[in-house]
Amino acid sequence: MSASTSLKVRLPTFVFVLEIVMIALYAVFVTYDDNSNAKLQNNETKPMENSMYRDYPYFADVQVMIFLGFGCLLAFFRFYGFSGMVFNFLTATFAIQWAILIQGFFQFYHDGKIHLGVINLLNAEFACAVVLISFGAVLGKTGPVQLLVMALLEIPLFAVTEWAVLKYIRINDAGGSILIHLYACYFGLGATFVLYRPNLNDGHPKETTSYNSDILSVMGTLFLWVFWPSFNSALTFKGDDQHRAVLHTFLGLSSSTITAFALSAMFNKRGKLTMADIQNVTLAGGVTVGASVDMMISPVAAYALGIMGCTACFFGYKFLTPFLAQRLRIQDQCGIHNLHGLTGLISSTAGICAILLATEETYGPSMYQIFSHRAPPEGDPKLLELQQLIPGLKPGLGRTAQEQALFQVAAIFATIAAAAVGGVLTGFVMKLPFMASPSDESCFDDQLFFDVPSDFDIQLDPLHLNSVYNAN
Amino acid sequence: MSASTSLKVRLPTFVFVLEIVMIALYAVFVTYDDNSNAKLQNNETKPMENSMYRDYPYFADVQVMIFLGFGCLLAFFRFYGFSGMVFNFLTATFAIQWAILIQGFFQFYHDGKIHLGVINLLNAEFACAVVLISFGAVLGKTGPVQLLVMALLEIPLFAVTEWAVLKYIRINDAGGSILIHLYACYFGLGATFVLYRPNLNDGHPKETTSYNSDILSVMGTLFLWVFWPSFNSALTFKGDDQHRAVLHTFLGLSSSTITAFALSAMFNKRGKLTMADIQNVTLAGGVTVGASVDMMISPVAAYALGIMGCTACFFGYKFLTPFLAQRLRIQDQCGIHNLHGLTGLISSTAGICAILLATEETYGPSMYQIFSHRAPPEGDPKLLELQQLIPGLKPGLGRTAQEQALFQVAAIFATIAAAAVGGVLTGFVMKLPFMASPSDESCFDDQLFFDVPSDFDIQLDPLHLNSVYNAN
Amino acid sequence: MSASTSLKVRLPTFVFVLEIVMIALYAVFVTYDDNSNAKLQNNETKPMENSMYRDYPYFADVQVMIFLGFGCLLAFFRFYGFSGMVFNFLTATFAIQWAILIQGFFQFYHDGKIHLGVINLLNAEFACAVVLISFGAVLGKTGPVQLLVMALLEIPLFAVTEWAVLKYIRINDAGGSILIHLYACYFGLGATFVLYRPNLNDGHPKETTSYNSDILSVMGTLFLWVFWPSFNSALTFKGDDQHRAVLHTFLGLSSSTITAFALSAMFNKRGKLTMADIQNVTLAGGVTVGASVDMMISPVAAYALGIMGCTACFFGYKFLTPFLAQRLRIQDQCGIHNLHGLTGLISSTAGICAILLATEETYGPSMYQIFSHRAPPEGDPKLLELQQLIPGLKPGLGRTAQEQALFQVAAIFATIAAAAVGGVLTGFVMKLPFMASPSDESCFDDQLFFDVPSDFDIQLDPLHLNSVYNAN
Repeated sequence: MSASTSLKVRLPTFVFVLEIVMIALYAVFVTYDDNSNAKLQNNETKPMENSMYRDYPYFADVQVMIFLGFGCLLAFFRFYGFSGMVFNFLTATFAIQWAILIQGFFQFYHDGKIHLGVINLLNAEFACAVVLISFGAVLGKTGPVQLLVMALLEIPLFAVTEWAVLKYIRINDAGGSILIHLYACYFGLGATFVLYRPNLNDGHPKETTSYNSDILSVMGTLFLWVFWPSFNSALTFKGDDQHRAVLHTFLGLSSSTITAFALSAMFNKRGKLTMADIQNVTLAGGVTVGASVDMMISPVAAYALGIMGCTACFFGYKFLTPFLAQRLRIQDQCGIHNLHGLTGLISSTAGICAILLATEETYGPSMYQIFSHRAPPEGDPKLLELQQLIPGLKPGLGRTAQEQALFQVAAIFATIAAAAVGGVLTGFVMKLPFMASPSDESCFDDQLFFDVPSDFDIQLDPLHLNSVYNAN
Repeated sequence: MSASTSLKVRLPTFVFVLEIVMIALYAVFVTYDDNSNAKLQNNETKPMENSMYRDYPYFADVQVMIFLGFGCLLAFFRFYGFSGMVFNFLTATFAIQWAILIQGFFQFYHDGKIHLGVINLLNAEFACAVVLISFGAVLGKTGPVQLLVMALLEIPLFAVTEWAVLKYIRINDAGGSILIHLYACYFGLGATFVLYRPNLNDGHPKETTSYNSDILSVMGTLFLWVFWPSFNSALTFKGDDQHRAVLHTFLGLSSSTITAFALSAMFNKRGKLTMADIQNVTLAGGVTVGASVDMMISPVAAYALGIMGCTACFFGYKFLTPFLAQRLRIQDQCGIHNLHGLTGLISSTAGICAILLATEETYGPSMYQIFSHRAPPEGDPKLLELQQLIPGLKPGLGRTAQEQALFQVAAIFATIAAAAVGGVLTGFVMKLPFMASPSDESCFDDQLFFDVPSDFDIQLDPLHLNSVYNAN
Repeated sequence: MSASTSLKVRLPTFVFVLEIVMIALYAVFVTYDDNSNAKLQNNETKPMENSMYRDYPYFADVQVMIFLGFGCLLAFFRFYGFSGMVFNFLTATFAIQWAILIQGFFQFYHDGKIHLGVINLLNAEFACAVVLISFGAVLGKTGPVQLLVMALLEIPLFAVTEWAVLKYIRINDAGGSILIHLYACYFGLGATFVLYRPNLNDGHPKETTSYNSDILSVMGTLFLWVFWPSFNSALTFKGDDQHRAVLHTFLGLSSSTITAFALSAMFNKRGKLTMADIQNVTLAGGVTVGASVDMMISPVAAYALGIMGCTACFFGYKFLTPFLAQRLRIQDQCGIHNLHGLTGLISSTAGICAILLATEETYGPSMYQIFSHRAPPEGDPKLLELQQLIPGLKPGLGRTAQEQALFQVAAIFATIAAAAVGGVLTGFVMKLPFMASPSDESCFDDQLFFDVPSDFDIQLDPLHLNSVYNAN
């Protein structure tokens, strides 16, 4: 092992410095929100009035997705299962506690304090998902310090983009296709572009799976699959909107899954199934329904979106990923551009179509709740009229469907640009000399950063000629 | 590999044809239900008024059971883990989207439309469980096209049986012992009877487990175990009925589990535990309490039912499964007749006893809610009296306990007959020549339908004499 | 295999005798509680009024922790994965059904009956967690009969301690740091002290992990991690108290996790990560926030407690566990003294500090709900005053903060003493000759109690020289 990748000093230094920073910031800025503060004596237990009861069940589902779903899915390499699962654990944990602070400043800050409740945790898990998706682009080629640095930089860059888009461009994106999936994807591609390793373009001897790692990875896919409706619906408007988000997500995933099986067999030389397709392409539908997940797109549209997203994702893996690696120096290890980029673009386009097609005839007056920026502005007599039908309707910006569609387009381009630039800059920081970056030979190998059990090298050497003599 | 099992054309053809059919049917027939439709502007968030809030938590639990529980449990073969887990994924996904349509026509169809909400998804997952249980009978001996055909036929056959039994015979079966477990079991046995493979009666060299596959399968058992109370209580009457369903299921599973350990050690030659017993027999109690799960049977009865079901299941595996295979040409691969058939029969009998013993003294007037067919019919003065005690009580059929018991008996026989006939017919379709059925030698072998990683044949050849020379 | 460890007679005898006892006790004593009894016709579905709706979601999360979390975590030994996961399943199941009865007599007994609802199941799962933590001390060195005996004795000893502490000493311990973690830890240490095996002090050749067992164990850690907020908040006062419990648990776990990574790399000779640290030390924060989890300790305090608990736990593994084993004859197999003992002591101390610092200024009048023993006693005019602010406030004991702190100290010592004595006594019973205790050589070996698949001895003999000739 080369001394330059020892974590002995680097990792503790990084962690302890950040813990001191975080203790200082939490101490000065973080307090309880109204529903977690004893002083207000409300003991509020109505589900829709306290994020503990409204959001915690979805938070728990997303926890499983983040830690077990991503964790198992990223453990698909034969000699990199420890790293895939455990670096995911480390990166996710750090990203969430950091996002609570950073998003707190942007979204939950008033009276000089960040007000903390379960809703903050839920938002932070979404920010964490952004980091983990980007992680997929550089999996196997980065060490834990690099990943923590990536989280350290990506969280604030994401939070400011999210804040700017939501505050100034104001979009509809309930499932996060634009802000989560497109941002994460292009950030990850930006970073991996900078971290380009020409020697790995022809593959690496350890870039392979094992029977057990493939099964483990499918389990990760299944954890993501079963709870994806919770993910896509967690931050929607409650009531029928959230209800539709669950239905559309389920249908999109469902059609996407059977399409992935069909395409996998169809384009395999011997007509067999490929586990990588089942691990990744099946999930495309969950992203593709995202931007319009709470709208009245009709169930069949969700079904069709699943098929479209899956198809784009599948051919992306087949043709675009090799092209990006060989022509554009973008080595996208897990193919996040297929699963999050292409699908995100389709989803955003579908969202725009849904916005353009939305009419009061279909939605009734609650159209102005879902498309809140289309609600009449303060003072408009139409607002008072609508408020008689929907008490508590908030004034909007009085945008037309076309205007809202243009803002969505602006948000897509702005997000992609911000993400790509942020990713490139972060990539340069990750490339700095003291980041314990693995050498090309040590990529995809748990031994670099882990004490491994004695059967690890038996795996490496199936004939076992050396294993008993050279125990690790 | 024989060309006749290539999925290259068959699987995509099947999937794409069905996707076109489904897109057409979803487009024409499926719309939102009242609680997922924006136009009604209700934004209903009261848990008992919107299936999003009433049913989604149970739906999420059942999702874990279907995809991770069954998926891991069925991955218990050493060389068939990919197939067990992944065919379960494919079959379940297809079965659910198909069941949404088919059950929709029977149960949620009015004004020319199927009205879609989370409750439909939950019902469809139950129909899917039926298919997956039947799948257990033919595991290892069927390809993915056969399994999709099985789902394609079993879902409508099940849906019509379910509809007929609920509409015309009208039974109490909260946990689905009759409609789910007995139907699934006898359907599966019917199919496997037709698919009989005489050469496999003496076992197959690959019909074996590995250390890792056994552990994986126990994890599947545990996923089913922990969420079974949600499964059995998801469709019960809310309030105390659902509460009892959880309690009884937990107690039944609990006593069943320790009994399974005791019997496993007792009937093992060397007094050791057998993993297959722990993977299967422990779960018997969950089925056995099913038919009476919401009734006032008393906690001790649930406990005793768990022991009885477990004992029947255990001896079924020991004596009945070999007998069925060798004498009756019924090769029941996972022993579904033990875990779902025998236990389902005990459960149905216990349900009948509970019906016969039910009195107003024990249940109070809410007896007519649980046993809704015993409620007085429209116009009966007793109905008005009861409606003063229980506002909103629906008129029933005025059946006596004895009458209801006879209808239960009729339902049991009708269900078993419909299932067996349906299974036999489906078996004939699955046997048609273009179904990519594996040859006897290729059974229980992932290589037939999957690209396998390079360590797969190391598993096949523990001495590794050939593996490095003949890499896959 | 030595005949003396056959389970053929012992295990069935134990199980069947206990099942008869339990059937008798359940028949005579167990009935439904108000919310699961049909006769009361309440059909109560308001979440806060029926433990089905209030507690079942947390119960389901704890189920996953108990059966999958502990089950996978304890399967970390290479040759002891069956035993770790399956003995956990057996012990947990028995412990819960036994605890329902025993705790029922202490906490839910009135009118000659134990009244059963989901709340009893939830309490019983907590008692079960106590047994499973103690199990960690003796893992690998005990057979299933010994473990059942341990559960049989520990449940009543725990229940009486819990009852006495709650009824007579009256403490604040929402997350169970004192009653669950300290009790479980010192009970386990007491038992393992008696079961001391001097020959194992220098290690055992099978006391090792494998690549797959390490990953499986991390999955167990992740299951515990993601649902720990549910565990710590399940039994708190509802509303803002439960909300804070979730927030503090998440923050404590979160800081604990990154600290564990830092310490693991820092104290590893080659600057690598150690899987055992990631499997265990990461979780320390969940215990450390326990005793003050529902108090207004501020988010930063939860964060700091996570770091402190993790640090103590880490150094405990490094220095204290070897010391205990070699000097004090206490072989703590999984290091429960680090993960539950040291952290429990820190947590208890933090709880005392939080009690001493609690003021009406911070908590408002709801201070008397959280610290219910500080509420004015019946008849005190201050009580009436407070009841106008908080309707339904229950009279307390009028304790001062200092008095409450002293009672906490008393409870800590009383709990530790009761646990240690109980553990020692239980250890003597477990050591009796007919308990099927494994010989020193057979420790950490699944073959003793399980029929193992044929690849088990390939694992034992990586060169495979003997495996094909001496198939099991």
